[in-house]
Amino acid sequence: MFLTRTEYDRGVNTFSPEGRLFQVEYAIEAIKLGSTAIGVKTKEGVVLAVEKRITSPLLEPSSVEKIMEIDDHIGCAMSGLIADARTLVEHARVETQNHRFSYGEPMTVESTTQALCDLALRFGEGDEESMSRPFGVSLLIAGHDENGPSLYYTDPSGTFWQCNAKAIGSGSEGADSSLQEQFNKDLSLQEAETIAVSILKQVMEEKVTPNNVDIAKVAPAYHLYTPQEVEAVISRL
Amino acid sequence: MFLTRTEYDRGVNTFSPEGRLFQVEYAIEAIKLGSTAIGVKTKEGVVLAVEKRITSPLLEPSSVEKIMEIDDHIGCAMSGLIADARTLVEHARVETQNHRFSYGEPMTVESTTQALCDLALRFGEGDEESMSRPFGVSLLIAGHDENGPSLYYTDPSGTFWQCNAKAIGSGSEGADSSLQEQFNKDLSLQEAETIAVSILKQVMEEKVTPNNVDIAKVAPAYHLYTPQEVEAVISRL
Amino acid sequence: MFLTRTEYDRGVNTFSPEGRLFQVEYAIEAIKLGSTAIGVKTKEGVVLAVEKRITSPLLEPSSVEKIMEIDDHIGCAMSGLIADARTLVEHARVETQNHRFSYGEPMTVESTTQALCDLALRFGEGDEESMSRPFGVSLLIAGHDENGPSLYYTDPSGTFWQCNAKAIGSGSEGADSSLQEQFNKDLSLQEAETIAVSILKQVMEEKVTPNNVDIAKVAPAYHLYTPQEVEAVISRL
Amino acid sequence: MFLTRTEYDRGVNTFSPEGRLFQVEYAIEAIKLGSTAIGVKTKEGVVLAVEKRITSPLLEPSSVEKIMEIDDHIGCAMSGLIADARTLVEHARVETQNHRFSYGEPMTVESTTQALCDLALRFGEGDEESMSRPFGVSLLIAGHDENGPSLYYTDPSGTFWQCNAKAIGSGSEGADSSLQEQFNKDLSLQEAETIAVSILKQVMEEKVTPNNVDIAKVAPAYHLYTPQEVEAVISRL
Amino acid sequence: MFLTRTEYDRGVNTFSPEGRLFQVEYAIEAIKLGSTAIGVKTKEGVVLAVEKRITSPLLEPSSVEKIMEIDDHIGCAMSGLIADARTLVEHARVETQNHRFSYGEPMTVESTTQALCDLALRFGEGDEESMSRPFGVSLLIAGHDENGPSLYYTDPSGTFWQCNAKAIGSGSEGADSSLQEQFNKDLSLQEAETIAVSILKQVMEEKVTPNNVDIAKVAPAYHLYTPQEVEAVISRL
Amino acid sequence: MFLTRTEYDRGVNTFSPEGRLFQVEYAIEAIKLGSTAIGVKTKEGVVLAVEKRITSPLLEPSSVEKIMEIDDHIGCAMSGLIADARTLVEHARVETQNHRFSYGEPMTVESTTQALCDLALRFGEGDEESMSRPFGVSLLIAGHDENGPSLYYTDPSGTFWQCNAKAIGSGSEGADSSLQEQFNKDLSLQEAETIAVSILKQVMEEKVTPNNVDIAKVAPAYHLYTPQEVEAVISRL
Amino acid sequence: MFLTRTEYDRGVNTFSPEGRLFQVEYAIEAIKLGSTAIGVKTKEGVVLAVEKRITSPLLEPSSVEKIMEIDDHIGCAMSGLIADARTLVEHARVETQNHRFSYGEPMTVESTTQALCDLALRFGEGDEESMSRPFGVSLLIAGHDENGPSLYYTDPSGTFWQCNAKAIGSGSEGADSSLQEQFNKDLSLQEAETIAVSILKQVMEEKVTPNNVDIAKVAPAYHLYTPQEVEAVISRL
Repeated sequence: MFLTRTEYDRGVNTFSPEGRLFQVEYAIEAIKLGSTAIGVKTKEGVVLAVEKRITSPLLEPSSVEKIMEIDDHIGCAMSGLIADARTLVEHARVETQNHRFSYGEPMTVESTTQALCDLALRFGEGDEESMSRPFGVSLLIAGHDENGPSLYYTDPSGTFWQCNAKAIGSGSEGADSSLQEQFNKDLSLQEAETIAVSILKQVMEEKVTPNNVDIAKVAPAYHLYTPQEVEAVISRL
Repeated sequence: MFLTRTEYDRGVNTFSPEGRLFQVEYAIEAIKLGSTAIGVKTKEGVVLAVEKRITSPLLEPSSVEKIMEIDDHIGCAMSGLIADARTLVEHARVETQNHRFSYGEPMTVESTTQALCDLALRFGEGDEESMSRPFGVSLLIAGHDENGPSLYYTDPSGTFWQCNAKAIGSGSEGADSSLQEQFNKDLSLQEAETIAVSILKQVMEEKVTPNNVDIAKVAPAYHLYTPQEVEAVISRL
Repeated sequence: MFLTRTEYDRGVNTFSPEGRLFQVEYAIEAIKLGSTAIGVKTKEGVVLAVEKRITSPLLEPSSVEKIMEIDDHIGCAMSGLIADARTLVEHARVETQNHRFSYGEPMTVESTTQALCDLALRFGEGDEESMSRPFGVSLLIAGHDENGPSLYYTDPSGTFWQCNAKAIGSGSEGADSSLQEQFNKDLSLQEAETIAVSILKQVMEEKVTPNNVDIAKVAPAYHLYTPQEVEAVISRL
Repeated sequence: MFLTRTEYDRGVNTFSPEGRLFQVEYAIEAIKLGSTAIGVKTKEGVVLAVEKRITSPLLEPSSVEKIMEIDDHIGCAMSGLIADARTLVEHARVETQNHRFSYGEPMTVESTTQALCDLALRFGEGDEESMSRPFGVSLLIAGHDENGPSLYYTDPSGTFWQCNAKAIGSGSEGADSSLQEQFNKDLSLQEAETIAVSILKQVMEEKVTPNNVDIAKVAPAYHLYTPQEVEAVISRL
Repeated sequence: MFLTRTEYDRGVNTFSPEGRLFQVEYAIEAIKLGSTAIGVKTKEGVVLAVEKRITSPLLEPSSVEKIMEIDDHIGCAMSGLIADARTLVEHARVETQNHRFSYGEPMTVESTTQALCDLALRFGEGDEESMSRPFGVSLLIAGHDENGPSLYYTDPSGTFWQCNAKAIGSGSEGADSSLQEQFNKDLSLQEAETIAVSILKQVMEEKVTPNNVDIAKVAPAYHLYTPQEVEAVISRL
Repeated sequence: MFLTRTEYDRGVNTFSPEGRLFQVEYAIEAIKLGSTAIGVKTKEGVVLAVEKRITSPLLEPSSVEKIMEIDDHIGCAMSGLIADARTLVEHARVETQNHRFSYGEPMTVESTTQALCDLALRFGEGDEESMSRPFGVSLLIAGHDENGPSLYYTDPSGTFWQCNAKAIGSGSEGADSSLQEQFNKDLSLQEAETIAVSILKQVMEEKVTPNNVDIAKVAPAYHLYTPQEVEAVISRL
Repeated sequence: MFLTRTEYDRGVNTFSPEGRLFQVEYAIEAIKLGSTAIGVKTKEGVVLAVEKRITSPLLEPSSVEKIMEIDDHIGCAMSGLIADARTLVEHARVETQNHRFSYGEPMTVESTTQALCDLALRFGEGDEESMSRPFGVSLLIAGHDENGPSLYYTDPSGTFWQCNAKAIGSGSEGADSSLQEQFNKDLSLQEAETIAVSILKQVMEEKVTPNNVDIAKVAPAYHLYTPQEVEAVISRL
C-alpha cells in the first residue's frame, strides 16, 4: 500500500508522505560535515570567525576563503560546499551593485539576504541561475545599515532568521550552547572577538593559529583581519 | 493487476486510482507540522494571531515573521514552509500594486486571494512563477474592502473558502473547536483579540509572551501590534 | 509476458493494453467523491441545483460557490475539484467575452461547451493553458441561445453530451434514476425547481436549507437564487 | 536476457523486440470497444450509417454526433474516442477551407485523408497539434471529387486504405463478412442504404430506431438524414 | 554486476553493452513482417516489383501503394510500415523539387538516397522532421541519372548500399538466393521483369494477379505498370 | 548499499562508481565488430587501406565506402557504424570548406580532427548537431599540411592521438602488433602500401581482391586507388 | 524505510541522504585512474611536470598533450579525461582573450581559474556550454600576474585551492608526501624542476625519458620544454 503511493510523487523537489522535502534535509547533512563558523552581533558591529581546514601544508591558507565580502557594508561566513557558496555570494554582489547603481544607496542587509534566499529556494525549477539541487551551504551574513548592525543565518531551504549570535557547521551544536551562555547585548566588539575565537578553539581539534582561523568584522565597514590582527585576538585568549 | 495500473499514471501532479492527488495531501501534512495561526472576523475588522517558535534565545523574535502585510487593506497569517509563503505574499503584493496602478483603486480581498490561489494551483506545470511541487503553506488572509471586513483561508491545492473564524497549523483541530464555541457575529474587535490569543495559549506548550505571539488587525487598515500592544492583550486574559 | 508489454507505454496520457486511459478514469473517481449537482431543462429555461458541503459552522456559505455564471446566458454547476473548475470557467468566460467583442453577438452554448472541452482534452500535452493531468471536475452547463434552452454535461475526458436532465457527483446514480422517472418535456420551470431540489434532498444526508443548497436558472438570463428564493423552493416540497 | 533488452527501448512510440508498436495496438483496442459504423460506396455516391449508444433516456440523441461534415463534399463516420475524433475533424476542416481559399477549388478526398493521417502518425513527437498518444479513433471518410465517389478507412497508426465498403467498431467483424456477401459494384444508393442499416441491425443489441442510428450520404454533396429520412430507410428493411 | 551496468545507459537511441542499437534491430524485425519487394538493375533501366496484401475483397487494390514516384527519374518500392514510408517519400519529393528549383537540374539518385537516410538516421534526436523512433521501413530506390541506372537499398539505421538486385520484406531471404542465381549484368529489362515477378510468385502464398502485384520501371523515366502491362508480364511466366 | 548508490546517477552520459562512462565503452564495442582499417605514415605521405565486407554478390562494391575524402589534403578510413561516420565526415567537410572560405587557406589536419572530436564529445547534450548517444565509429584521419604528412586516430569518446601507424576494427589487435614490427620512419610510400595490404590480408578471412579492399593515399593530395591500382598493390605481395 | 526515501531524490546532480554528491565523487575516481602531474611554485616561477602514457610505440609522443598553454602567462597540467580538459582549456582561452580585448590587460590567474570552475560547477544544468555530467578532470593551473607566480588546483566539483606544490592523478598520494618533505619557499626554479621530475620518476613504472615526460614553466611566460631541455633536467637527477 505504502509503496504504491510513492509512485505518484517522485521528483527532486517533492513532498514525502510525511510532508518533508528530503533533498533539503540531505543538503543540511552536507553542512553538518562542513567547518565551523561563528557570528556575534554587538552594538558596535558584527564579528565573524571561521575554522579553516588546511588539509596539506602545501596549500596557501589565504586561498581557503571561508569569509567573503558582499559589499562595503556586508560580509558573510559559510559552511558546506564552497563552490555553491561562491555562486550565492556572486549573485548577492551583483544584486547589491545593481541596487547602488539604480537607487544611489546601499542595499539593506535584509534585502540582500532575501535576494540570496530567493535564489536558493528555487532549486529544481529550471531557471537560468537556479540549481537543479539545493545549494549545499549555510551562510552567516553580517551587515550594517540604517538599522544598525545585523546578523542573518540562512539554510539550504531558502529560509533565513535574524540572530544575535549563531554557529554553523560540524561544531555548531556545542558552539551554540556556549554562545547562549556567553552572549549578552552589551558585549563590546573586542569581547565578541574573544568569545567567537575561544568557542572556535573548543570545537576545533587542532591548535588555533592565524593559518587555520579567519576573522572579519562589519563595524560599520567590512574588514577581513590580517594574520597579525588574528594573532592579536588569539593571544588575548 | 493493481501494480500494472500504476504504470500508466506516474507524475508529480497525477491522480491515484482513487481519484486523489497525493502531492497535495503530503503538502497538507507539512502544514500540520507548522505553528498555529488563528483569524477571527468581526464587524469592526479582522484579527490575526500566530504562535512564533523561537528555537534559540539568540534568535531575534521580530525576524520570525508569521504575519505579513500584502497591501494597506490586506494582511495574512501563515503556517507551513515560510520560504514558500514569502513567494506567495510577494506575488500578491505585486498583483495588488499593479491593480492600484491600472485601476486607481485597491484590489478586492477576494480577487487578491484568487490571484494567490491561481499561482498555487499550477504547481508542476513548468510556468515561470509556479513551483514544481505544491506550495507547502496555508494562509489566513484578512482584508477590508467595499464589502467590509473578510477572512479567507487557502490550502496547498489552490482552493479557498471565506470564513468567520479559522485556525491553521499543528493546533488547528483544538483551536477550531474552541472557535466554534466562542465565536458569534456580534463580537467586538477587542473580544476577538482576547479569544484568539486565549485559544493560542491553550494549544501552545509554552507561556504566551510578546516574544512568541504576533497579533495584527485589519480594521480597516493593516496594523501589526507592537510588543506593548501584544502585552496589553495578554494581560487581559 | 504481460509485464514486458507495459514497458513500452508508460506516460500520463497513454493507452493501457485494453485500450483504456487510466488517468481519465481516476479523475472520474475524483468526481464520484464530489457533492451532487442536478440540471433540468424545460421549455421555459434550465434549472441547476447543487449540494454545498459546509464542513464548519464558521465557513461563509456564500463563499462555497458550486454554481457560477459564465456569461449572461450561460451558467454552470460543478462537482469535483473546485480549483480545477475555476480554471475551466475562467477560460470559458474569456472565450465568451472574446466572441461578443469579435462578432457582436453571444457565443452559442454548444460552442462554449466545445471550447471548455478542447482545453480539458489536451491534458498532458504541455500547452500553456492545459494541465499536466486531467481536470478533476464534471460540469453541467445550462444556457439559452437562438436554439432555445439547452443543458450540456462534460466529463474529464473532454467529451460532452446534450441532456434533458442530468445529475453528477456522489449521489448521481440515485439522482439519475429519479430524474428518469420524474422528467417529462412539458415540465414548467417551477416544477423543475421542485424536482431538482426534492431529488437533492433524497441524496443528501443532511436537512436541506438555504445554507447547503444553491439554485440557479437560465431563463433566458442567468440568475442565482437568493437565500429567500431558495427557501421558497424548499418550502414547496 | 530478455528483460535486460527491454531496458534499451522504453518510450511511448518505440518498437518492441518483435517490431511492434504497442501504443498503436492498444489504441486499436479502444476502437474495438466503440460503436459500429458502416460505409458503402456506389456509383451514385457513398452512404455512411452508424450506431448511436444512448446510455440514458435523458440524453438528447441529436447531440451524440458520430457522423460529421468535413466539407461540402466530404463527411466521416467514427468509432472510438469521440473527443479525439473531433480534434481530427476540426483539423481536416481547417485544411479543406485553407485549400479552397488558396487554390479556389475543393481539396480532393485523398489529400484530405492524407492530411488527417499525417497528424495521426506524429503522436508522441511533441508537435503543437499532435497528441502525446495515438488518436484512439478510426474514421470512415466518404467523399466525392473529380474522380467520383470514394470511401477511405483510417486507423490509429496513421495508415489509410481506399475501400468499396467497410465496417469499424465493436461489430466490425460480423459486419465486414456481411458486406463482402452483399456488396457489388452496381448497387444503387438506395440499395446501399438498405444494406448498411440492415447490417447495423444485425450487430446492434437494441431495436433500430431514428434515435439510435444516424445515416448520411455524399452524393455528391454531404447530407445528414433527418429522423424522417432515417425512419423511411428503416421501414424499408 | 551486469544489471547495475544497465543503469547507466537507458534511452531510445543508446548502445547495449555489446555495442548494439536495439531499437534499430527491432525496427528491422518490423520489416521482416512486411510484404516482399524486389528490385533488379539492367543496363536499360531498373525494375521494381512488389507483393500487395489485399486483406479484404472490399479494399481498392490501387489504393494499396507499395511503389511510389519520388521524381520523374526516381521511384521506390517499400516494405514495412506504410505510413512511415510515406513520410520518407514526401521528404524526398520536397528535396528533389528544391534541387530542381535551385540548380535547374535533377538531383542525383545517390544524393536523394542520402537525403532520405539523413532523416532516418536522426531518430530520437527531437528534430522537427525526425521521429522519436526509427522509421520502420526499408526502401528499394530505383533511379536513372547522368551515371545511368542505379538501385539503392536503405534500412532503418539510415545506412544504404548500391545493388545490382535486392529483395526486402518477409520473403527476402529466399528471393535474394534466387536473385543471386538468376542475375547477370547483361539482362534485358524484359528479362528483369520476368525474373522479378517469377521470384515474387515463389515467395507469395497466393496466385499472382494484377490485383496483388505492382510493377514499375525507371528506364529512364519512372513508369508504374497498368494492370494490362502487369498481366502481360505475368502471362510471360 | 551499492544499489542505492546507483539511484543517484542514472543517465546516458554519467559516471559509474568506478569513474567510467559506459556508453562510450559500449560504442567502442560496436567498433570491435567493424571491418579492419589500417593507416601508415611515411615521409612521402600517408596510406590508408580498409577491408570491405561485401555481404552479397549483388552489392556494388564501389558503393561500400569505407574511405572518404574530407578535403583535397585530408581523407579518412572508418570502422563501425557507417551512417554515423557519414555525419562526422559531412561535418568535417563543411568545417574545412568554411575555413578555406574565411581564411583563404586549407584547414590544418589537427584542427580538422579537433572539430570532428568536438562534435563527438558532446553526445547526450541536446545540441543541434550532436547525437543522443556516442558516435559508434573510429576514424583514421590522413592529411598533409604545412607540417607535412600526419595520421590521427579518433575514438567514440572524442579523444584523438597522432600516430605513425594504426589499425582499427575487428582485426586491430593483430594488425597493430604487425605494424609495430614492420613500421620504421624511413618507409617509402610504396613499402607502406605493401605493409598495409599484407597485414589486412592476414586479418581478413577471405582472399584479398580489388572488390574487398580499398586503398587511398594523401601524398600530398587525397587519391582513392582505382581497382587497377589496388590490383597492382596486391600483385606485389 | 531507507529505500522509500531514495524515491524522492533521483537525479544526476542531487544529494544522497548523507549529504554527498555521488557523480562528483565518481568523477574524482576517473582522475585517480589518470596519469600523474606535479606542480611546484617558486619565487622565480612555477614548474609543471607530467607523466605521458605512450600505449604504443607507433603513437607520436608530442601529440599526447598533458600540458597546455591557456595564455602567455598561464599554463595547465591535467589528469583524467583529456577530451574534457580540452573543453575547459578552450573555454579558458576564450575568456582570457576576451579579457585582453575588453580591458587591455591580461586576466589574473585567479579570475581565469574561477572562470574554469564556474563552467565545471554547473554540470547537469542544461546550459549551453555546460555538460550533463561533471568534467572528469583535475587541473594544475600555473600562472604569473601582478601578484607574482601562483599555482591553483581544481577538482571536478568546481572547487579550487591555491597551493605551493601539488600532485594529481594515480600517483598523487605518494607524490604529495614527497612534495611536503622536499618543498620549501626558497627553492630555485631549477631545484623545482629537479624535485618535480624526480618525484614523477618514483611514481612511474617506466624509465623516465623525454618521450614519456613533459615539463613546462611559467616564469613569467609560459614555455613548454623541448625534448633537449627535458633531457637536460633528467640528466641532472
